[in-house]
Amino acid sequence: MSTVDPPQAWRRAAERNPEVGFVDAILRGASQVFLQNNPITGLIILAAVCWGAVDAGIPQAAIGAVLGLVVGTATATLLRVPHAAIREGLFGFNPLLTGLALPIFLRPNLQLWVYVVIGAVVTTVVTLALSTVLQTWDVPPLTFPFVLTTWFLLLSAYQFAKIREGPLGRPALPHGVDPRSVPVHVTGGFLTPSMLKDVSEVFLLANTVTGLLILVALAVNSLWAAGFAIGGAVVSTLVAVWLGTSGTAVAAGLYGFSAVLTAVALGSVFYRPSWRVAVYALLGVVFTVFIHAALTTALLPVGVPPLTAPFVLATWLFLLPKRDLAPPAHRELPEHDVVRSR
Amino acid sequence: MSTVDPPQAWRRAAERNPEVGFVDAILRGASQVFLQNNPITGLIILAAVCWGAVDAGIPQAAIGAVLGLVVGTATATLLRVPHAAIREGLFGFNPLLTGLALPIFLRPNLQLWVYVVIGAVVTTVVTLALSTVLQTWDVPPLTFPFVLTTWFLLLSAYQFAKIREGPLGRPALPHGVDPRSVPVHVTGGFLTPSMLKDVSEVFLLANTVTGLLILVALAVNSLWAAGFAIGGAVVSTLVAVWLGTSGTAVAAGLYGFSAVLTAVALGSVFYRPSWRVAVYALLGVVFTVFIHAALTTALLPVGVPPLTAPFVLATWLFLLPKRDLAPPAHRELPEHDVVRSR
Amino acid sequence: MSTVDPPQAWRRAAERNPEVGFVDAILRGASQVFLQNNPITGLIILAAVCWGAVDAGIPQAAIGAVLGLVVGTATATLLRVPHAAIREGLFGFNPLLTGLALPIFLRPNLQLWVYVVIGAVVTTVVTLALSTVLQTWDVPPLTFPFVLTTWFLLLSAYQFAKIREGPLGRPALPHGVDPRSVPVHVTGGFLTPSMLKDVSEVFLLANTVTGLLILVALAVNSLWAAGFAIGGAVVSTLVAVWLGTSGTAVAAGLYGFSAVLTAVALGSVFYRPSWRVAVYALLGVVFTVFIHAALTTALLPVGVPPLTAPFVLATWLFLLPKRDLAPPAHRELPEHDVVRSR
Repeated sequence: MSTVDPPQAWRRAAERNPEVGFVDAILRGASQVFLQNNPITGLIILAAVCWGAVDAGIPQAAIGAVLGLVVGTATATLLRVPHAAIREGLFGFNPLLTGLALPIFLRPNLQLWVYVVIGAVVTTVVTLALSTVLQTWDVPPLTFPFVLTTWFLLLSAYQFAKIREGPLGRPALPHGVDPRSVPVHVTGGFLTPSMLKDVSEVFLLANTVTGLLILVALAVNSLWAAGFAIGGAVVSTLVAVWLGTSGTAVAAGLYGFSAVLTAVALGSVFYRPSWRVAVYALLGVVFTVFIHAALTTALLPVGVPPLTAPFVLATWLFLLPKRDLAPPAHRELPEHDVVRSR
Repeated sequence: MSTVDPPQAWRRAAERNPEVGFVDAILRGASQVFLQNNPITGLIILAAVCWGAVDAGIPQAAIGAVLGLVVGTATATLLRVPHAAIREGLFGFNPLLTGLALPIFLRPNLQLWVYVVIGAVVTTVVTLALSTVLQTWDVPPLTFPFVLTTWFLLLSAYQFAKIREGPLGRPALPHGVDPRSVPVHVTGGFLTPSMLKDVSEVFLLANTVTGLLILVALAVNSLWAAGFAIGGAVVSTLVAVWLGTSGTAVAAGLYGFSAVLTAVALGSVFYRPSWRVAVYALLGVVFTVFIHAALTTALLPVGVPPLTAPFVLATWLFLLPKRDLAPPAHRELPEHDVVRSR
Repeated sequence: MSTVDPPQAWRRAAERNPEVGFVDAILRGASQVFLQNNPITGLIILAAVCWGAVDAGIPQAAIGAVLGLVVGTATATLLRVPHAAIREGLFGFNPLLTGLALPIFLRPNLQLWVYVVIGAVVTTVVTLALSTVLQTWDVPPLTFPFVLTTWFLLLSAYQFAKIREGPLGRPALPHGVDPRSVPVHVTGGFLTPSMLKDVSEVFLLANTVTGLLILVALAVNSLWAAGFAIGGAVVSTLVAVWLGTSGTAVAAGLYGFSAVLTAVALGSVFYRPSWRVAVYALLGVVFTVFIHAALTTALLPVGVPPLTAPFVLATWLFLLPKRDLAPPAHRELPEHDVVRSR
């Protein structure tokens, strides 16, 4: 199904050799952030994240990401999660994001690294807990285990003197956007880097090279995924600009990263691409922009960011209706079932 | 079962002619805000809303209500919702309220009308999503799809310069009530208009004529519904005054609209009226007042109103125990099952 | 199974005589706050709470606790809850806590006592509602009915002039901990009373005698429960101190009471004690500290305390994975099923 599959030799080695199998699970875990299941995609994504983190002067974020990925996947093994789910990388992507986010928002010291390790372990427990709850309605936890665990850890940082906040926004009461912050001339020179940053901001990094590499990584596994990612970035940026969002937020890719994930999930993963699905996904992408803006307002008084919660909420709301979006005569099943069956 | 049924000729035309059937569904949708299923009730309610909106100088609210009702119902048809549920108006009342609320809290411009249309479409998607979740426990979404969608859209308005807040309260930290704002002399001349506004505030309008017309509309379908609506208004106003609520809030009907809906739902729709049920509904109404006050406090820092969330939360909490409130020997089934079976 | 069982004569009287049975249910209800089911444990706990309340100059808190216990249990009877669940005290512990908390945070007057009675009745309704929802995943409501009802009632107090806030923290925006408030020299003389207060703060009282009496009460029913309570207090205090929490909060036992409950629940009630379970419970206890800190931050702008929500959230998250923590060959069932079967 993929554009490029891993070599047959690798897949055989991953099945026979536990160490190679673990590395394979780790790489697939990195690709599952974008709901893909391909170790090559994961390898390119990890390279893209390392580039972006080093380029931003926060190499500890890349270290945290790999640490989270390894610790989280190992925790799943210790908790005797069925091997198949671990092998698909379904227990890697959430702790990867937790391990990445904490060093981005908090300053590095011993306590931070304890946070990262505990955060990765707990993210795996939360993944199992949410899977139990959500399988009632046959929807997956997506990145919500990362969001929930990271919200708890970032909120708790305000109560601990040994955990020092870095670029966490200061808690404040919401107020309207300053009209002077809204971009007046919106050109391709403004939009193109914004959209690439929409893609890289999925990993909390504002880096055009990272964004470009991720698009390549997606295309390696699925051209549809890459196409819907670009579509999500274009639509969300245009909507945010048209509604008069702060120009710095749009330029940094903050209004697009959740929308990119919603577009990939609704357009190419959970439903089979079609015109009807594209319209439904478009609506989901637009509403993701609204939810991102809403959570930006709602979380301002407690000083934590929305993370990928807008993607999760929008995708849940658009999956739960369980509507058959294929033409009546040819009902098709989703090609890839991300819902864990345990 | 109704006090006044629509003429037989109308019902036959609604079944045969799709256009008449759509108008019938629209009118029943308006009546479902109060959990009724009667096109005449819906027609009077729409007239009451138009009167109240024009009288308050915001005719755009009435236009938004009708637009939401039509767009939301049409979306349900496009998403292939079973025809019977649409025909009962179950996909009309939530988008009606979304379309009504947005022009009341935001100033009219092109972006607002885009908000209303997207809001109505998304409200229908959210109705389907919540129905899937809530059917696990056999309770209906009530007006929560409207509340959730409208909260997202109002919260997001703070991030968009092209969406201008109207009478949305400014975000602030909660503080105690100023004792000077509490009414000293509470007389019938204070209470009667307050109670009629309790009824009209279900549609976010403080208008005694609108309240009176709605009571007539309820009586047309069910005298019990009208009676419990009046009871809910009386009880909630007395509780709020006795606890020392701000006089302006009580006079505007803000402490009663959710309680009116709780009284109708618990007293006459989900349980069959009896003394035992009346006591249970009374408790539900009193706790609705507390939840309204609680959400007023909790939402103050993010600058959005509770809408009808207190009604939804109280009614869910009082339906979920699934207690049999009829005398042991004569268990009776609820006469009208509002829970959608899909 | 218990260390000390109630005399055979008492148990026989409780079964035959409804009045003795009611007293037995009341006492078991008091013990269920710590997930125990033993009237002697409950009696000692009630004595400990009375001592702590009188010693703190708030005897009305003890009166409220007993009133809540009686009213809540009676409400369950009126709502025809199966007798067995009432007899185990499962409908007593939540209203006990509601009736205790309200007079601690609010000043006594007529309106307060109405709050306590309505709060106890509603807590029972909420217990039934949450039981219906949570039995889908076979987890119990724990103390969440108390938390939810009390949050609603405390939040609503800000809107009512006749309900006067006592030591409810003033709503504020979160800010970092003042490093000067962090204890420099942490010695046994600081830690021992803190840990006893961790135990007594389950009942919102900072009293070493109360803490000691509660440990005795636990040991009467289960030495494991007493052991895990002490373990939870030690671990949470050390974690909070190591992360640099405000010294006054640690000294008052605020960082330990939820952790004590998590330790008892995960270590000795829902799983059978073992090394594997102890490690899992340890992780749950550590994360309870983070959740307590997180909710302290998140609830600051609305001016209500976390209560035992951190215990509830952590315990749910660590129960829902439904992992079998016994060695593969000897799967053992939880010795005491707290999940209500209705």
